[in-house]
Amino acid sequence: MKPLTCTTLSLLISSVAAIWPVPVSHEYGNTVLFIAKDVPFYWYEPGARNVGSITDQIPFLFGFNSNQAPHAQDSSDLKLRTQYTGPVPSEKSETVTGKGITSDDIVVYAINSTWATLFQTNFYPWKFHPRDWDEPSPSQSNTSYISRVDVKVLKSAGPNVTKPLAGEVDESYSLTLTKEGVASISANTSVGIARGLTTFSQLFYAHSDQQHVYTPLAPVQITDSPKFQHRGINLDVSRNYFSTADIKRQIDAAAYNKMNKFHLHVTDSQSWPLEIPSMPELSAKGAYRPDLVLTVDDFAMIQRYAAIQGVEMITEIDMPGHTSSIHYSMPELIAAFGIQPDWNTYAASPPSGTLKLNSPAVYDFLEKLFDDVLPRVSPYSAYFHTGGDEVNKNAYLFDDTVKSNDSAVLQPLMQKFVDRNHDQVRAMGLTPVVWEEMLLEWNLTLGPDVLVQSWQSDEAVAQIVSKGHKAIVGNYNYWYLDCGKGQWLNFYPSVSANYYPYQDYCAPFHNWRLIYSYDPLHGVPAENQHLVIGGEAHMWAEQTDPVNVDRMIWPRAAAAAEVLWSGAKDEMGQNRSQIDAAPRLSEMRERLVAKGIGAEPIQMPYCTMEGNVCSLGNLG
Amino acid sequence: MKPLTCTTLSLLISSVAAIWPVPVSHEYGNTVLFIAKDVPFYWYEPGARNVGSITDQIPFLFGFNSNQAPHAQDSSDLKLRTQYTGPVPSEKSETVTGKGITSDDIVVYAINSTWATLFQTNFYPWKFHPRDWDEPSPSQSNTSYISRVDVKVLKSAGPNVTKPLAGEVDESYSLTLTKEGVASISANTSVGIARGLTTFSQLFYAHSDQQHVYTPLAPVQITDSPKFQHRGINLDVSRNYFSTADIKRQIDAAAYNKMNKFHLHVTDSQSWPLEIPSMPELSAKGAYRPDLVLTVDDFAMIQRYAAIQGVEMITEIDMPGHTSSIHYSMPELIAAFGIQPDWNTYAASPPSGTLKLNSPAVYDFLEKLFDDVLPRVSPYSAYFHTGGDEVNKNAYLFDDTVKSNDSAVLQPLMQKFVDRNHDQVRAMGLTPVVWEEMLLEWNLTLGPDVLVQSWQSDEAVAQIVSKGHKAIVGNYNYWYLDCGKGQWLNFYPSVSANYYPYQDYCAPFHNWRLIYSYDPLHGVPAENQHLVIGGEAHMWAEQTDPVNVDRMIWPRAAAAAEVLWSGAKDEMGQNRSQIDAAPRLSEMRERLVAKGIGAEPIQMPYCTMEGNVCSLGNLG
Repeated sequence: MKPLTCTTLSLLISSVAAIWPVPVSHEYGNTVLFIAKDVPFYWYEPGARNVGSITDQIPFLFGFNSNQAPHAQDSSDLKLRTQYTGPVPSEKSETVTGKGITSDDIVVYAINSTWATLFQTNFYPWKFHPRDWDEPSPSQSNTSYISRVDVKVLKSAGPNVTKPLAGEVDESYSLTLTKEGVASISANTSVGIARGLTTFSQLFYAHSDQQHVYTPLAPVQITDSPKFQHRGINLDVSRNYFSTADIKRQIDAAAYNKMNKFHLHVTDSQSWPLEIPSMPELSAKGAYRPDLVLTVDDFAMIQRYAAIQGVEMITEIDMPGHTSSIHYSMPELIAAFGIQPDWNTYAASPPSGTLKLNSPAVYDFLEKLFDDVLPRVSPYSAYFHTGGDEVNKNAYLFDDTVKSNDSAVLQPLMQKFVDRNHDQVRAMGLTPVVWEEMLLEWNLTLGPDVLVQSWQSDEAVAQIVSKGHKAIVGNYNYWYLDCGKGQWLNFYPSVSANYYPYQDYCAPFHNWRLIYSYDPLHGVPAENQHLVIGGEAHMWAEQTDPVNVDRMIWPRAAAAAEVLWSGAKDEMGQNRSQIDAAPRLSEMRERLVAKGIGAEPIQMPYCTMEGNVCSLGNLG
Repeated sequence: MKPLTCTTLSLLISSVAAIWPVPVSHEYGNTVLFIAKDVPFYWYEPGARNVGSITDQIPFLFGFNSNQAPHAQDSSDLKLRTQYTGPVPSEKSETVTGKGITSDDIVVYAINSTWATLFQTNFYPWKFHPRDWDEPSPSQSNTSYISRVDVKVLKSAGPNVTKPLAGEVDESYSLTLTKEGVASISANTSVGIARGLTTFSQLFYAHSDQQHVYTPLAPVQITDSPKFQHRGINLDVSRNYFSTADIKRQIDAAAYNKMNKFHLHVTDSQSWPLEIPSMPELSAKGAYRPDLVLTVDDFAMIQRYAAIQGVEMITEIDMPGHTSSIHYSMPELIAAFGIQPDWNTYAASPPSGTLKLNSPAVYDFLEKLFDDVLPRVSPYSAYFHTGGDEVNKNAYLFDDTVKSNDSAVLQPLMQKFVDRNHDQVRAMGLTPVVWEEMLLEWNLTLGPDVLVQSWQSDEAVAQIVSKGHKAIVGNYNYWYLDCGKGQWLNFYPSVSANYYPYQDYCAPFHNWRLIYSYDPLHGVPAENQHLVIGGEAHMWAEQTDPVNVDRMIWPRAAAAAEVLWSGAKDEMGQNRSQIDAAPRLSEMRERLVAKGIGAEPIQMPYCTMEGNVCSLGNLG
């Protein structure tokens, strides 16, 4: 046996193209092309428009030069809209004010952000090459540069491009980069352009000289579109407080993984951090601190910040359970608040408490709350999530409007409660979203428009779609990012041994490989699979706060993002391979870190420097 | 049933004093005392010394004022050494140059660092009080201030205070704070003073006005000493690279948890980041990158940085296994390098490889290596760790000096190999440390001085001490901080299902409660327990790098620190209670975060704001 020859073999198995999530079809070459900071981006669109108008509206953009305005090369009906060349100022687009976002805003932001990724937050890929690697040199006589990046919006913008129902916006794109250095990204929509430019940026690496940027992959041919329409993460900002900066980092990372939904679980029993101007006491008394609040401006800003990246924020105000924090301002609305020590008879987690189920005061409160929140959601989203998970019937024993835990008593009241909420959501032009329990456990009659979010099992997904509803998946055994950190409850000595070794209900920790192995369509009959519109990875925040939130979500949620964009099966219909995915995910992790998102490492550098040397099994 | 009355009960169970690790004896009052930035620290010591000499030697210290020089109040043989008043400049003591550290340096650093903790990196404890909390007000007419902090070193410094064998330095201290505002910390040694001042700093909180600092706990009476002599963390800086700043953060956190050892696992198979001036190619070719190296200056600096905080750095160069990174510079010394794909027949993790076991060239290399490293260790430590874990006998099939995996052939060669190493360690005046396998698996005859580090089981600890050796514990099922994150190996589709759900060998993730439940003396007969000198929590770095290292180690290693300082049993001989520990550990976590160490949260604020409301079990 000669061990060293085996090493040589493994060195050949190396990732050359690390686009994450993997595109539908992709061909790469091995020609090195550099790209310079003054590379021109040409923006084409159908028909004639006012060239240069964007630079008037959005003054932070880089310089406009109308002298070089070539016609689009492959789409004769496209006209040059404008051209950008030069550096991006430090102010980014989240500072744009005003209601809503246009399709044009998305294109401008995508170009802007691609430039920043290429030249300001790129990464030096030493971890993906052996120690004796020959880095491409910009000083060689045959150094070629990319001459232009064509950005072609093929169709005029339809309605709701920034606040779509799932599937309403075409996110597909095609990308070509010739060996001679002409890049072209084409898409039917501005969001498709954003996705294509994201891919484009991932073709490039920073040189160790910290000056140059190059791709080793020309020529490139990519066509791409998402497998699922709804691809998101869900962040709980109630159990711990997160600043807008913390939230924006998660949106940036989600967008860079081509996710298109950001679900904000904005209130829960532990705190109410959302400012409600018509009832300011809700956050003044219900937030952990009066100053730890998402203000009206903050709330609008993060929705805009998401929308401009083609990410729709879906706001959830969970109810009737998970509402104890209302008690701090309006104790008369909440039943069974803060029962101790046997809180677990009345709630999934302390403090117990639920909105009363048959209370005119609660109904008045809800109308006022929805009147306040929904108009602030509707410029940015087609949805509003009314929650509905983990309602504990025992809590209604303490509800003076009900005094019963009998389903026969509670169910009609819950139907009325949800009907009221959903009527008001629809009146604002929004589509309601609920957790699966409302449909499957409470057997409510929900409108056919209602989107149902599943979390408990694949069987639940199958049931939801069998009832004709669209479903979002996120089985907690796979896609709950909090699982496996162990208990956050404290155990008295009398019971401590019973809970040893202190694992949580959804242990083990969900390694990215487990997340990656989850197929949203598993167990769903073929005829209903079209109703599974996507899924979300969930970050519940009992043990997560701004200090560790990036590391808890990333890069593991990226594994979900690839499943949702590319599908759980490869082109051969097989489960996607870790061998292919691991180095690409490690590279995505480095790209996220370079962008200021503290994603965890999934392997040591040795494992990615030498090809697939950290593997078990065989090539067969 | 009236749920709200139960809540009232739980509110009474609140942590009032959050010293971590918990002192041996402690009494607190409920008087609020503020402390001002100009509070004088009086440093007393036995006999007459040159007042003010420290300010000459260490120019970064704050102002000296000899006008107020009261005699020590309770120890008539103590004389005032010097007095410090005023702010700490931004330069900290890690910039001191020169060999070794003196006992005086430790006192000065401790005062300096206590001042910084009190006034620069303190924390506002809103998470430990209900929403309607009445914060102590500095504007009340009866506001009292602490008038002085007496620091009394009761004995002249013995030898080796900064490079002790375990137990050689007395770390006990006593602390009093009168209701009138006189604080006094007394200890037999400068290290005891450092421990006492650490406790002192934990009595204080920052006011929300960001101006004032106070304790709500006067009067205070604490006497304290450690249960175990050896209390440490072990950081692997080979599998991932860590900068000196990353390493210093871990030392700071260890010292703040009253740990006194910092074990640096500085080389391994994946990289050799330690600069060896006599053989520069070792790191030039063996580090992940030539610039990702601990230079000679870095190595001295981090040892000094630890020593001045009463933390002894123990350097480990693991051998003969875990040495594959030597192959990159000296391939002739390493057998069985980089076998693929069946690396796991030859090594615990890739790349396989071992120092040849019967090679004159290896012996020459080791002599040169030790000659280079040991003189750089000896100013700062009494120990040198020669490793010895996970030696895979099959690797010697490829060793041209052995060509066998037969224990009968290998064992005498290993004995000779270790004897050579330990003779050279002793010749430099150092004490060897080895991993348990050298004693228990290879049955080597080790000198009685050799300290044996256990990791595999409690039974191993019992065996080590039954053979008369001192033991360091750290059972991987409890104190390996890497466990439970899941596999870092990639599985080919042919075997992937066999490894589902991709847990690692030492899953589950070790929640702090599991770490806290570990008793270093478990299973050790009473007559041998004195040989269990302490333990270490281990941070192996396959999935840990600078981005997540703080969160992977802290606050979980703090749970080990309390077991080691305070013992696994409380004063009643019972396992320590999570109910008592959890809020204190949450507070330690906030103190670490305030100091710039990214420790994870273990509970949401709700759980610590309202007393023990996040618990299960009963008070009985």
